[in-house]
Amino acid sequence: MENNTNTTTAATTTSAPSSSTVSRTVLLLLRVLTFVFLLIAFIVIVLTKETLDGESELKFKDIHAYRYMLSTIVIGFAYNCLQMALSIFSVVSGNRVLNGGAGYKFDFYGDKIISYFLLSGSAAGFGASEDLHRFFKANDLPLNSFFGKANASASLLLFGFLTTAIASVFTSFALPKKA
Amino acid sequence: MENNTNTTTAATTTSAPSSSTVSRTVLLLLRVLTFVFLLIAFIVIVLTKETLDGESELKFKDIHAYRYMLSTIVIGFAYNCLQMALSIFSVVSGNRVLNGGAGYKFDFYGDKIISYFLLSGSAAGFGASEDLHRFFKANDLPLNSFFGKANASASLLLFGFLTTAIASVFTSFALPKKA
Repeated sequence: MENNTNTTTAATTTSAPSSSTVSRTVLLLLRVLTFVFLLIAFIVIVLTKETLDGESELKFKDIHAYRYMLSTIVIGFAYNCLQMALSIFSVVSGNRVLNGGAGYKFDFYGDKIISYFLLSGSAAGFGASEDLHRFFKANDLPLNSFFGKANASASLLLFGFLTTAIASVFTSFALPKKA
Repeated sequence: MENNTNTTTAATTTSAPSSSTVSRTVLLLLRVLTFVFLLIAFIVIVLTKETLDGESELKFKDIHAYRYMLSTIVIGFAYNCLQMALSIFSVVSGNRVLNGGAGYKFDFYGDKIISYFLLSGSAAGFGASEDLHRFFKANDLPLNSFFGKANASASLLLFGFLTTAIASVFTSFALPKKA
């Protein structure tokens, strides 16, 4: 393992010090975690439904905030898959696809904007759940399982936001060293 | 004006180049804008109420998402006042209160965390408004003015988030140059 790291470092001496290799690996781990959180959040929100009065069905699509949540999950997921592919390539080969300042700026702005997206989706979901749930309960329609699932999805989205926000701190610190 | 800038630059040659003075002034402008947006958002959300059936009154406090919105406005406002005081001091005197890496790290993490707070408050407010408004309308209680005011406050909070997010880009770029 140590030999391997040394070889990689030696091969890219001009552009990548050892600490950069470490932070790339941490970034890749964070992105894998985000991938898992967003995947489960997606599955949970899509499966969120409950039958009312034995016939009509309440689906996640009926709550606009959950639709927005789904769209932020999809956007975050797509960005994350792209970044994971780039990260895997850069960890394996020791080189970056986007060389120079462009790659670091892409990481910096990408993580920043996507972390804002994920947080807004999660907050909108929680905001809608909290008050709608109280309102439905006051109307003798508890729907606990429906809102429980939606909140589980919003929580996973929040975890996905947290890992992306941590990645964003790393990419902010990496930015001007190379620019 | 030019003389003044030169004098300031000369006085702090060791730590602050001219571009740093410019970005400090831009940062101060962004913080003044955030201050104005958050102040109006605070006033609007506090004044959000509507009488139901001529007797009972619906207040912003009855919607939990709006309470959360208010708390993020207050947190953002307090942070912003502190940063404005520090910015004014640094623009006037040409020196920073927190010298070295500490000041830049405080700006970086502060702007990052507070921008996340403001966005989550705004998103929670919009998420709750959108679906509650639809739900109330379906129950023949339009409450257009109530939700209109709440959305106005959430929009102003969103503008406050945007100016803080732009400030956060500036403080991210300023970070490792001095660290």
